[in-house]
Amino acid sequence: MGGPTPEHVLKLGMGFWASKALLSAVELGVFTVLASAPADVTSLQQKLGLHQRSARDFLDSLVALKVLERENGIYRNTTEADLFLDKAKPSYVGGILEMANARLYGFWGSLTEALRSGHRQNEAKLGTDFFAGIYADPDRLRGFLAAMSGISAGAAHAIAAKFNWKDYKSFVDVGSAQGMMPVTLLRSHPHLSGVGFDLPPVGPVFEEFVAHNGLSAKIRFQAGNFFEQALPKADVLIMGHVLHDWSEPQKKALIGKAFDALPKGGALIVYDAIIDDQRRENAFGLLMSLNMLIETPDGYDYTGADCQTWMHEAGFSQTKVEHLAGPESMVVGKK
Amino acid sequence: MGGPTPEHVLKLGMGFWASKALLSAVELGVFTVLASAPADVTSLQQKLGLHQRSARDFLDSLVALKVLERENGIYRNTTEADLFLDKAKPSYVGGILEMANARLYGFWGSLTEALRSGHRQNEAKLGTDFFAGIYADPDRLRGFLAAMSGISAGAAHAIAAKFNWKDYKSFVDVGSAQGMMPVTLLRSHPHLSGVGFDLPPVGPVFEEFVAHNGLSAKIRFQAGNFFEQALPKADVLIMGHVLHDWSEPQKKALIGKAFDALPKGGALIVYDAIIDDQRRENAFGLLMSLNMLIETPDGYDYTGADCQTWMHEAGFSQTKVEHLAGPESMVVGKK
Repeated sequence: MGGPTPEHVLKLGMGFWASKALLSAVELGVFTVLASAPADVTSLQQKLGLHQRSARDFLDSLVALKVLERENGIYRNTTEADLFLDKAKPSYVGGILEMANARLYGFWGSLTEALRSGHRQNEAKLGTDFFAGIYADPDRLRGFLAAMSGISAGAAHAIAAKFNWKDYKSFVDVGSAQGMMPVTLLRSHPHLSGVGFDLPPVGPVFEEFVAHNGLSAKIRFQAGNFFEQALPKADVLIMGHVLHDWSEPQKKALIGKAFDALPKGGALIVYDAIIDDQRRENAFGLLMSLNMLIETPDGYDYTGADCQTWMHEAGFSQTKVEHLAGPESMVVGKK
Repeated sequence: MGGPTPEHVLKLGMGFWASKALLSAVELGVFTVLASAPADVTSLQQKLGLHQRSARDFLDSLVALKVLERENGIYRNTTEADLFLDKAKPSYVGGILEMANARLYGFWGSLTEALRSGHRQNEAKLGTDFFAGIYADPDRLRGFLAAMSGISAGAAHAIAAKFNWKDYKSFVDVGSAQGMMPVTLLRSHPHLSGVGFDLPPVGPVFEEFVAHNGLSAKIRFQAGNFFEQALPKADVLIMGHVLHDWSEPQKKALIGKAFDALPKGGALIVYDAIIDDQRRENAFGLLMSLNMLIETPDGYDYTGADCQTWMHEAGFSQTKVEHLAGPESMVVGKK
């Protein structure tokens, strides 16, 4: 005993069990049901439509995975699960897990094929285009944009706190989705005015979200396609979870367009699950890059150094990388 | 900042990325190739048949997941990966990960359906029987039994060290597979003689493994079906990764048969990823029970207290639970 053990490799390799248990729990609405009232196994079985065979094993697995608590046979959400996995709360981040459950879990089953071929493994493989489908269906689009909000909320709070907003008056969020970033920034910095820039079908969802947050006077939507036209001008441009979708020439083109839209002294904020320069720490960022292999023709994630190089090539004079929250960082370039 | 963050739920929910990256690495033979010689990305790309698009992201993901190391651009296995994931070494445990990659990852994609219906989601859903297929095909059977050895090795070493073997002379390993347990016990306790009991097709694979380890004089194979006949008699009976496959009546029947095969003073050792009595710590054991939902008609994992109750009902006078290694424990019953 005391020598090397296979525990790490076995736990990592079988990690899809724990992951899929949580994804199924989100799909089944476990956390939304428990947010309204803690419950015992019998009542949960009925409310969730679970067969009795494994209901208890499933719920106790969620206890062991620290997303549920159980006391005297009564299950309740942990603080985090209640805040982030209850569909009824604005802090819900489960949309991204719903998407992972419905799409990515299966597509990642073809990771080996993706690694051998270099080709994406999503709906495109069957000749359909997930994103075209989503933009054509207002209900699915709403769900997708809400999911994007879930994964942007942490970064938005960190950017509100860490960037020096008092030196600036206006910003454009490029690829704004529902508008989580503009809304979060305005809540902390009411002197700002912001624009959400995204494809035309996003407009109504964005405007509803902004109105719901009482910020329609400060934040407006501008429809456009960032490859086909110039970006709207502002003191600060933000590109979050955008650059990693695209090839290197496309990444550089977008950074160049941001440069053109900024005044002298203006700033570009790029954020993503940016990989550490040594490419050995940020596992999530590296795996996100493999997710771009699964999902896009040419996209990939990048290091802070990569992004700083592209920014300098575009003409930015000062750049820096700053950690935001979890696996995410921002790269800031000043014109 | 400082309040609750969604990091835990997002990391858990997206955990299938890390898991599948390792499973694909095992499938592609990354660790076997690197065990023969450390290599740079270009050479690995060629040896492994990787497309250049994501080869570096894939390998650096494995570095961040701590199964590879990288120095000056040269990748090598970590100590654990080299020992446990190189196919050429007898300590290889990757067989179980190969099986997870080829079968379970996909079947777990139907976990929600399993939880709603109570029905397994493996080949049985398509009307085929994975195990019948395996027992009918000597090559696949050999691979499967080797995989079982991989996951039994840790428990076998712990049982060799923790059970009081000097009081006993003979044992039967019920459901022996390739024979990892008998071989491991004999290496530490040469005074023992052992029997591997399993279905007839297992015989040649078992005998080859025992002969390869130079132990044919001390260990023999006995063919049989543990539901259709009495168990062979010995001082100690061992049932590892057996009971969880079956329903409660079947579990009790097997424990009863073990009792009948033991002399007074004899012992039954049951081991599995036994769930803690409070059902809140051993996530792997609870998830293994969901795996039994995916794989078997009625199987489930159980706590030490459950197993002790069944043993007492069968007539065992003393019982105890002892931790082995990782998520596994043994329950020992004395007649």
